[in-house]
Amino acid sequence: MTAAYWDAIPPIRFEGPGTDNPLAFRFYDKDRTVLGKPMADHLRVAVCYWHSFCWPGSDVFGPGTFARPWHQDGDTLAAAEAKLAAAFAFFEKLGQPFFCFHDVDVAPLGETLAEGRHALEHIAERMQAAMARTGTKLLWGTANLFSHPRYMAGAATNPDPDVFAFAAGQVRATLEVTHRLGGVNYVLWGGREGYETLLNTDLRREADQLGRFMAMVVEHKHKIGFPGTILIEPKPCEPTKHQYDHDAATVHAFLLKYGLEKEIRLNIEANHATLAGHAFEHEIAYAIANDLLGCCDINRGDPQNGWDTDQFPNDVAEATAVLTRIVSAGGFTTGGFNFDAKLRRQSIDPEDLFHAHIGGMDILARGLIAAERILTEGRLARFVADRYAGWDQGRGRAILAGGLSLAQLADEAMAENLKPAPRSGRQEYLENLLSHHV
Amino acid sequence: MTAAYWDAIPPIRFEGPGTDNPLAFRFYDKDRTVLGKPMADHLRVAVCYWHSFCWPGSDVFGPGTFARPWHQDGDTLAAAEAKLAAAFAFFEKLGQPFFCFHDVDVAPLGETLAEGRHALEHIAERMQAAMARTGTKLLWGTANLFSHPRYMAGAATNPDPDVFAFAAGQVRATLEVTHRLGGVNYVLWGGREGYETLLNTDLRREADQLGRFMAMVVEHKHKIGFPGTILIEPKPCEPTKHQYDHDAATVHAFLLKYGLEKEIRLNIEANHATLAGHAFEHEIAYAIANDLLGCCDINRGDPQNGWDTDQFPNDVAEATAVLTRIVSAGGFTTGGFNFDAKLRRQSIDPEDLFHAHIGGMDILARGLIAAERILTEGRLARFVADRYAGWDQGRGRAILAGGLSLAQLADEAMAENLKPAPRSGRQEYLENLLSHHV
Amino acid sequence: MTAAYWDAIPPIRFEGPGTDNPLAFRFYDKDRTVLGKPMADHLRVAVCYWHSFCWPGSDVFGPGTFARPWHQDGDTLAAAEAKLAAAFAFFEKLGQPFFCFHDVDVAPLGETLAEGRHALEHIAERMQAAMARTGTKLLWGTANLFSHPRYMAGAATNPDPDVFAFAAGQVRATLEVTHRLGGVNYVLWGGREGYETLLNTDLRREADQLGRFMAMVVEHKHKIGFPGTILIEPKPCEPTKHQYDHDAATVHAFLLKYGLEKEIRLNIEANHATLAGHAFEHEIAYAIANDLLGCCDINRGDPQNGWDTDQFPNDVAEATAVLTRIVSAGGFTTGGFNFDAKLRRQSIDPEDLFHAHIGGMDILARGLIAAERILTEGRLARFVADRYAGWDQGRGRAILAGGLSLAQLADEAMAENLKPAPRSGRQEYLENLLSHHV
Amino acid sequence: MTAAYWDAIPPIRFEGPGTDNPLAFRFYDKDRTVLGKPMADHLRVAVCYWHSFCWPGSDVFGPGTFARPWHQDGDTLAAAEAKLAAAFAFFEKLGQPFFCFHDVDVAPLGETLAEGRHALEHIAERMQAAMARTGTKLLWGTANLFSHPRYMAGAATNPDPDVFAFAAGQVRATLEVTHRLGGVNYVLWGGREGYETLLNTDLRREADQLGRFMAMVVEHKHKIGFPGTILIEPKPCEPTKHQYDHDAATVHAFLLKYGLEKEIRLNIEANHATLAGHAFEHEIAYAIANDLLGCCDINRGDPQNGWDTDQFPNDVAEATAVLTRIVSAGGFTTGGFNFDAKLRRQSIDPEDLFHAHIGGMDILARGLIAAERILTEGRLARFVADRYAGWDQGRGRAILAGGLSLAQLADEAMAENLKPAPRSGRQEYLENLLSHHV
Repeated sequence: MTAAYWDAIPPIRFEGPGTDNPLAFRFYDKDRTVLGKPMADHLRVAVCYWHSFCWPGSDVFGPGTFARPWHQDGDTLAAAEAKLAAAFAFFEKLGQPFFCFHDVDVAPLGETLAEGRHALEHIAERMQAAMARTGTKLLWGTANLFSHPRYMAGAATNPDPDVFAFAAGQVRATLEVTHRLGGVNYVLWGGREGYETLLNTDLRREADQLGRFMAMVVEHKHKIGFPGTILIEPKPCEPTKHQYDHDAATVHAFLLKYGLEKEIRLNIEANHATLAGHAFEHEIAYAIANDLLGCCDINRGDPQNGWDTDQFPNDVAEATAVLTRIVSAGGFTTGGFNFDAKLRRQSIDPEDLFHAHIGGMDILARGLIAAERILTEGRLARFVADRYAGWDQGRGRAILAGGLSLAQLADEAMAENLKPAPRSGRQEYLENLLSHHV
Repeated sequence: MTAAYWDAIPPIRFEGPGTDNPLAFRFYDKDRTVLGKPMADHLRVAVCYWHSFCWPGSDVFGPGTFARPWHQDGDTLAAAEAKLAAAFAFFEKLGQPFFCFHDVDVAPLGETLAEGRHALEHIAERMQAAMARTGTKLLWGTANLFSHPRYMAGAATNPDPDVFAFAAGQVRATLEVTHRLGGVNYVLWGGREGYETLLNTDLRREADQLGRFMAMVVEHKHKIGFPGTILIEPKPCEPTKHQYDHDAATVHAFLLKYGLEKEIRLNIEANHATLAGHAFEHEIAYAIANDLLGCCDINRGDPQNGWDTDQFPNDVAEATAVLTRIVSAGGFTTGGFNFDAKLRRQSIDPEDLFHAHIGGMDILARGLIAAERILTEGRLARFVADRYAGWDQGRGRAILAGGLSLAQLADEAMAENLKPAPRSGRQEYLENLLSHHV
Repeated sequence: MTAAYWDAIPPIRFEGPGTDNPLAFRFYDKDRTVLGKPMADHLRVAVCYWHSFCWPGSDVFGPGTFARPWHQDGDTLAAAEAKLAAAFAFFEKLGQPFFCFHDVDVAPLGETLAEGRHALEHIAERMQAAMARTGTKLLWGTANLFSHPRYMAGAATNPDPDVFAFAAGQVRATLEVTHRLGGVNYVLWGGREGYETLLNTDLRREADQLGRFMAMVVEHKHKIGFPGTILIEPKPCEPTKHQYDHDAATVHAFLLKYGLEKEIRLNIEANHATLAGHAFEHEIAYAIANDLLGCCDINRGDPQNGWDTDQFPNDVAEATAVLTRIVSAGGFTTGGFNFDAKLRRQSIDPEDLFHAHIGGMDILARGLIAAERILTEGRLARFVADRYAGWDQGRGRAILAGGLSLAQLADEAMAENLKPAPRSGRQEYLENLLSHHV
Repeated sequence: MTAAYWDAIPPIRFEGPGTDNPLAFRFYDKDRTVLGKPMADHLRVAVCYWHSFCWPGSDVFGPGTFARPWHQDGDTLAAAEAKLAAAFAFFEKLGQPFFCFHDVDVAPLGETLAEGRHALEHIAERMQAAMARTGTKLLWGTANLFSHPRYMAGAATNPDPDVFAFAAGQVRATLEVTHRLGGVNYVLWGGREGYETLLNTDLRREADQLGRFMAMVVEHKHKIGFPGTILIEPKPCEPTKHQYDHDAATVHAFLLKYGLEKEIRLNIEANHATLAGHAFEHEIAYAIANDLLGCCDINRGDPQNGWDTDQFPNDVAEATAVLTRIVSAGGFTTGGFNFDAKLRRQSIDPEDLFHAHIGGMDILARGLIAAERILTEGRLARFVADRYAGWDQGRGRAILAGGLSLAQLADEAMAENLKPAPRSGRQEYLENLLSHHV
């Protein structure tokens, strides 16, 4: 019985910062009220199926190390049911509100679209029951359009339209299952939508294909009445040399070009941000400033390693900065923090998966608590507002309103003999201020 | 007499690949016909003022090493005239068709906008005469909105609207002088348009300020009848932590958001591309695929150094790949290749500046000659066309035309039991094909 | 009177975590006893002359922004005296125990070695008085062998032996002055000991030159009876393409090759570590594991910027990890934490330099306090000891003792049919444990 | 019959630069005399077993795409024999002189050391026959000490001495088989000798373990009379966060510390060099300057991707630079160029493996031919010799001979009032010179 795999682990409870129990939360207290609502409703934590229940602990230089019992039967329906039992047993012990999955994580893909769809629906029925029983909800579903060899040259951007059609079949099935399960978002991650070499690639065609695919998904969402959000997840590269959904700004350009900027939002992943040469906070800030923030894949990369290490987050200062920004902007609507994070290959014991999630949830909780202090105090926000105050009045307002031409403004500047005095940016003071609350 | 500085150097001539003379072109033969027009008209090479005549050989750890005679008088009009003489003497010997400048490169900025404008116009008159005498043309002008302390927190994106106004004054003057000199482009490089820390930065406001600034420049261009192209030059960082014009896709998003995508094109710099985590060829390909390519700053970075080393290009394979793409797309209209490249600090002799430009021009010439062979042979283009042929007919065409919904396509895929067969991407074969022509 | 520059700033006092005063220490409480000795004696904080009193706020794209009054007289003895007054006035207010300098930071270099030495000695006399008056001590002195154009191709590794000789003159003078001032270390940072291009470089010769130079410095140290430590500071690149003192391991190889491993230790800089592709903690750990740790330049880089940003540290977790390691290894002897850190260019007010140092010192203090908790608790150390316990007995001990050949061991392994069982590395648990104490 | 897999491919012949046949060499002409010996004897090209015959085309996001017939039977002796037949059929068509393997590439590892050894010896017998028949020689053998879960925490550096013992068993067997097959080198690549986190790692212990392991291998080599070279292959990270054999300098330090610098040399891999932040040429130059160069794994990384992409080389300029250096230093003795390079995952046809190797061998051949021109002409070498000429006489010689103290030299410099004049480093001229020959 695979659910028994976690039997030695007690349900994880909040015990406060003073506890010595490594299998307890020290900060994640789901019912604690923070800025007017429960902590759990701010953070909306999800556990992901793929890393936590599908991945065997393999890497590019070696096979799996985890020896999960539900992996012993291969890619069968029976194994899928065992995995489901193990996953929900884990969810019950951890107590997080959400989970996420790809179609192939939860059910065998089969040889044909029909087989795959049938298996997915079979599992969805059992999943629905497990969700009802445990109260765990679906943050998002997605279709895996990158592992099977048919997708080796992309799905929507494949040179072969039949591959596009096959992908349409998978997405349709997964979106409909997500809808049935009450999922609050549907994610598109273009795992192989990109190129290995520009030599054999027609960028313009592939962008048009991808634009058409996204539009079809959006149309279908409306047709079936799916109330959730469609999300794109930026990543700059890996497994491809270059992924088209490179970073938030690149996806922004794509959405604007294809008229989808009101329909699709971003699922920002921390490690994808850093692979793209951005701070995670930058990607969040860019998304917010352009009304594109949907959800987060929370994890971390290794600053010295140039691939997606997908480690569990452990930086309170970053969590604080990001949560201050998200909460200031009104918080998540359908989104949340999905742990797209995996154990290290040497963390082979059942309890390691708990340590990992406990640590990650406590980091988010500490970030939220610090964000509350920063927002309540208000010094940071006031500093920024004061810094730009000139744009809310006089010349600043006139410029932004469009009432001044370049020549008029230049004439004014010359006539007034402007000598604007520099003002300190106070970076070190502001960094200290943030540190004080962390 | 500063023009005498180069007296020991003979005019640079084309002598062919067999020459042993390091002060001759081996491949750059301006009148050689390539694909129907002279090589010089394809490449449209420019020498830049700032690195070649203004920079003294300093770096962040030490002062200048070059001891150019025209640097001895400080930032005066007399020094500016001496520099002008030296620059045009260099242009005459090298024989390239174009040059580029910032306002502060050619004339002292002065204490006030009025002083700066006066000095710029004084020099522009002498420059016009030198251009007429030598036949050297202006590829583009630009205003330096990043060096003076007033711009330490940005120009258009400064928290102080007076700094925006000052910048408007500089740009207006420089754009008008560029127009008077027959410049074929005007460039905006947002050297400090970015941030040092998100803590004191309002991204949304700063984007709106920048959008307004660009719109004002475009309006003024039309008002004065400047026929050239307005260009933005992407760069991801340096001197700031993050520059808003991060890469081609980011600028694309910005232009679309502010409705400027028909008015402004890109000046792609090789080293800025690599700092942003892209191949130079990628940025060129992205710009072409989105009708945004304007011009190139040609140089190279050091693959092991994380700052803008601005070295002269020396990679024939890259030049070939880039030129194949540019020529296939119809070639430059107003654009060209500006050597935004600087000597190494130890290259202190007058002849070193010639070696650098000769090497760079020969690399571009070899790239162009190889591109001609590749395009004439046609194997590469045919391979790509064949690879996507399915999209020009049947299901592919129907998908792109918008005539199929997700559900229809999914139903078709299931009904036909599609099993698309993977086809080799032939990357190694294509790389060999490119290598053969380099 | 330049010392008056800081008049508006009160002396910085410890006020505890609860204070709202940004010009007070919240954690740095110099007399607090930590693991048996005062906090100040663990951290041994130094302020550096170059970034804090010499650098004008310039960067590669613009001149200085700081307008320090003592910069107005150029590179004269009078200006050097004014700077000295300003520096010691700052030290008195901040209350840190140490400072550091390069020869050229404190006195004009002059035209000749004799002039430079004379100026240095003139200033040293005044410095001695200021040190006596304020109690501020010298952590280390060093000679600047990288700024002057004569060093553009290196100092000890220059192709010209006369440059080596000139460098010898500077180092001899600075080492002797450091000795006279009671400095407890002398640092050698090979700012231009490296190459711009391998094409003109003979690596073997340059290594031999550098080896000889270091040996001469060590000999002179003993001859004059300098009791301090000679330190080399690794850096991978910048301003050069490649610096010979690339990282701790590279310097280790160099010291072993030239027989200097008992004479010279390392001054590890955080930002240099990350530029070299290492965590700061890695470089510290490597140095400790090879008995090479001398001192630290404490600062931080920007994870997204590929140059030495030299920001003030603000990562408590990193400070904790590093301090746990240093304290476990017995702590500094002659070393300490030198703030080789600079303000951001927009931080132009006198108080900004205080915010920066206060923040940095508080981060170190928090790291030390957390390290005390970790070491007192002992769980981390016990985990590691247990993990390797097999090497303290039986087969492990025999292997290390050299008593087993490959064939014997292989025979044993085959005969015993060894099937070693993997044990969890418990990374996430250990990361949580560290987080709990931060 | 798996050997039939390549039946459609003709034997690869040299046809010269003018050929249009993509399945012919254009530059690799094995018998062409270059600097006094056949091209093949300079380059000593090897094909590797693992990427070319074992890897199925999988990556971290998807399973294999290649469908090689010999992969269908799993990890059995029969499959190993089929693979052997396929490999030697490939070698015969390509005509390269050498190949390389890991123990697990050629034979099933089995459940126990005894089983693995038996299988390896079984295959070795058949391999010996195939080598005799085809004339293909063994460049090196190695043991895979990183894939099996037992090695998840390292082999020699494992916290469990039994894992060390198991590794000893594998290395002993593989070294002896390498010896029997006439292999000319034996390689140690520490695939998991490193750490995932410093938190659970004792660097000093692990270095001592690794030092002991290497010493045991060297002792065994002498005991069995293996005349080949023992090689260590540096790599900075991947799959681990940090590998102990980080780069050439780090291994140099290790060898010196454990007294192995006369016994072990380096196998430098191009892509490992760039992952470590070095140019490939730098690592070669460092190895030569320290008498450590043994062999090369030739491939390339992607400049934008931070993992080991192991692509086939295609940069003539780099090949030229590296070959100029290797040939100048006397060329390989036991070493050669092993193609540790893999196809892209989309290159699924039998012919793709030929395109890849043909392209790589032609790049090396072009590099060698260019190196011959550069060395014959002699300008580059003369420039470097002249640059350092001062060190061969007078003061330079005296300094290096150790006859001058710091004080004496400083006194001389001051007495002579030295003002060394900077000389141009001529980097751009030298880069052009190299370009001319490429």
